[in-house]
Amino acid sequence: MFKVKVFVTLRESVLDPQGVAVKGALHSLSFAEVQDVRIGKYMELTIDRTVSDLDAMVKEMCEKLLANVVIEDYRYEVEEVVAQ
Amino acid sequence: MFKVKVFVTLRESVLDPQGVAVKGALHSLSFAEVQDVRIGKYMELTIDRTVSDLDAMVKEMCEKLLANVVIEDYRYEVEEVVAQ
Repeated sequence: MFKVKVFVTLRESVLDPQGVAVKGALHSLSFAEVQDVRIGKYMELTIDRTVSDLDAMVKEMCEKLLANVVIEDYRYEVEEVVAQ
Repeated sequence: MFKVKVFVTLRESVLDPQGVAVKGALHSLSFAEVQDVRIGKYMELTIDRTVSDLDAMVKEMCEKLLANVVIEDYRYEVEEVVAQ
């Protein structure tokens, strides 16, 4: 099995109101040193080992469903899981 | 400056209906090899370099605001950003 970790983040040029809200909340909890917060999504997919081209598959999943490539960037890491 | 990447995930024992929905959507897009999907949150914090104990600060922020430790786990990575 493969464990694929997908990180989806808003592009730098896109405003992140959720991040601004979290930054405000951290400031009001006296964490004044926080200068910026950006919020993204994190997904862990477990994928069958029979897949021939994992990279192509993950890219297609990200572009079709997991990320909105107009306003979001994605990156991913693949780990091979050995059955115990 | 420090760039702290925080990953918040639901604990293994907690049901993840959003993950189940995404898995269903991937299956209907013919990605049948996807066996499981878990959804989490990803946050990038930019923190001032004047902080003395960054680890303690990040843990406190996670436990007070960023993660619900009853049902979620968190982990984080710290990168030092050098001004250009």
